This record gives sequence, structure tokens and C-alpha cells, in this order.
Amino acid sequence: MKVAFVIYSNMTALDFIGVYDPVTRLKSMGFLPDLSWEICAYSETVSDSTGLKFLPTQIMQSLEEFDWVILPGGITPLVYALTQDVNFITWLKTAENCQLKASVCTGSLLLGAAGYLRGKQATSHPNAFKELAEFCAEVVDRRVVDEGNVITARGVTASIDLGLYLCEKVAGYEAKEKIRVQMDYQTEPNSDSSPLYA
Amino acid sequence: MKVAFVIYSNMTALDFIGVYDPVTRLKSMGFLPDLSWEICAYSETVSDSTGLKFLPTQIMQSLEEFDWVILPGGITPLVYALTQDVNFITWLKTAENCQLKASVCTGSLLLGAAGYLRGKQATSHPNAFKELAEFCAEVVDRRVVDEGNVITARGVTASIDLGLYLCEKVAGYEAKEKIRVQMDYQTEPNSDSSPLYA
Repeated sequence: MKVAFVIYSNMTALDFIGVYDPVTRLKSMGFLPDLSWEICAYSETVSDSTGLKFLPTQIMQSLEEFDWVILPGGITPLVYALTQDVNFITWLKTAENCQLKASVCTGSLLLGAAGYLRGKQATSHPNAFKELAEFCAEVVDRRVVDEGNVITARGVTASIDLGLYLCEKVAGYEAKEKIRVQMDYQTEPNSDSSPLYA
Repeated sequence: MKVAFVIYSNMTALDFIGVYDPVTRLKSMGFLPDLSWEICAYSETVSDSTGLKFLPTQIMQSLEEFDWVILPGGITPLVYALTQDVNFITWLKTAENCQLKASVCTGSLLLGAAGYLRGKQATSHPNAFKELAEFCAEVVDRRVVDEGNVITARGVTASIDLGLYLCEKVAGYEAKEKIRVQMDYQTEPNSDSSPLYA
């Protein structure tokens, strides 16, 4: 299984790393030994919104080879501007036939601009619900919204919940629980009994 | 105020980014306009435990100029080996007169090797409590342990709790709450009523 972690300038680093940590543990903790991933960008260099630099491992290459494509979010007006960047969105559309597209925070605006949320429920950072409404059938206020081949997560730290959700989806509850404990994360995604997942 | 985010090879990326996010929001959200930071390493390149590359902004420079020095953790045996790397630990000792040294996860072993936990309570990832015991007066099983000029946080995701704790310490409850909401993080560090902070 191959995962593309998409990064782009002005993204929020925690949106990326929060899901990167549990998903890559599927391999390092032995649950999916054949898992591989690339850090994919449409530019040679990427700095997050505070200037922290990340190095992509694939630049401007098609995303069609991946099973999962995962996008972080960033500051709403900057990400909204990116939804109108024809080259970037055309690049995201190379993920059309990938099994799963997932996003954190305002990353869902980018999935929307690529057409992946048409007719679907989706979520985003609560500050961007208005912008998200342009791109999907219904904005849903939940930590993780699963529409089968498209999964969206709410704000920044919901990245961790998305990651654990994906771990359970692909490797089962026991594997996800071991990863969660190793991350010292003490609640469960979408548990209605937890205040984290209102 | 100047913050050093220390990074090193085989660290856990989320240990670093979980505290980096809330602390840097002190500036981007306007609470501490004069806040500045550097990404400090003792090597020219740094890859986390999964090969993700980070670029330091200061290499092998003294840490004495910083107010806060914050260390991530990594896989226990690798970090324990680093506690015996004389050059690296000598470099960490340049932080001796800094106002605050803080760590996430097994980063506390490194603080300990530099002598900063002598006579103090401290925490770490529960898997590393035995190793930590060598370096401090008492191992404490809490999300965040505040000993004044040294603050340690438990495993990986406790990085976020450490960050919010530091935000409240330097900018007050209201600022921390605004940052927490912007991060879409829904519980409070060290709240005994929350299952997150057992």
C-alpha cells in the first residue's frame, strides 16, 4: 500500500504530522510491513505558515500511483486562494482514481476544488465551514466524516483522530489501539462518550 | 522572547510539531509579537525516525541566548544512546542558564543527561520510566510535570498539552484558550476531570 502525504507552502505543519505519525506507525510497529509513502509537493521547496521548511520526496509527479492521498490544511484565505490555482488543482486531480482521498482542516477545500466532494458530506475547521459549503453537498460538524473514498477531518488536531481512524480502517481495532497507546493519546476518534468528539 | 526548538536525528516528528504549533501561535495570533524562535540542531541534517527531513536554522551554535529550550523525544533505545553522546550532551549543557528547559516524551532523558533533572520530579513516555529514573529524583506519571525552570511532558501527543501549558504560563488563560480553540483541541492540560489527563 502506498500513501501520498501532500504538502504545500503555508500549510499547517501539525495538520500534516498529526496524521503522518499514526499512519507511518502502521509500518514501524509491524502492522503493515509493505506500507510505503512519499512526501508529495507541486513545488521544490515547502515552508509551513511559520517558515518551517519541509523537503518533498516527489515533486510535480502524478498522484495516480497511490492508494491513499492525504492533504493538510492551512490558513483559510491562503488555502481558499489555492483552490483557484489551476495548476495545483489540476495536479490534485491526478488522484481521481486513488482508492482514498483524505484531508485535515481546510485541506477539504482543496479536495472540494478538485471535485472530490461533489454530492458528499464533509467537514473542515469550523472557521471555514462557509467556504467548504461551496464545494460539498452538506457541511457536517464532526471530527471525522467518512464518505467511503473521501474522508475529511475537522481542525488542526483532528489530524491525529483522522490518522487513528485510518489505522483502524486498514488494520483493525487492535492495531489502532496499540498505535494510540504508543502515541500516548487517551481518547478514541468519534467516541460519542468523549468530550473530544462532540 | 526567544525559543529554541531542538531537533535531532531519530526524533519523533510529532513530539516536535505538537508543541511547535501552539507556541508559535503566540506570535501568529498576536499574543507575543516579539516572540522569535530557531530550529536548533547539532548536525547539518536531521531526519525523524521515519526518514522525514527537517532543516535546522542554527547548527552547533550555543543555546545560551534562548529563554526557552524545548526538546522532543524519540525511540527509547536510540535516545538512551544519545544520552551517552558526550558532544551532544555538552551542547545541551550550553542551555544551563536559560530560563526554561522543556521536553516531550523521552526528551526528558536528554534533559536528565545534561543534569537538569537532578533532585527534580519528571515524566516521560511510560515505556521509558525505568530509564528516566536514572536521571531524576522521582518519576511522575502525569501529562505535564512543572518543576519551575524544567518542565517535562509524557508521551508523543502530550507535546500538544505541553505547548498549551506553556502558552498559559507566558500569556495567560484567555490566550491559551483562544489558541486551543484555533487548534480545535477540546480538552485542557492537567484537567483531572478529563479522561485525557489521567
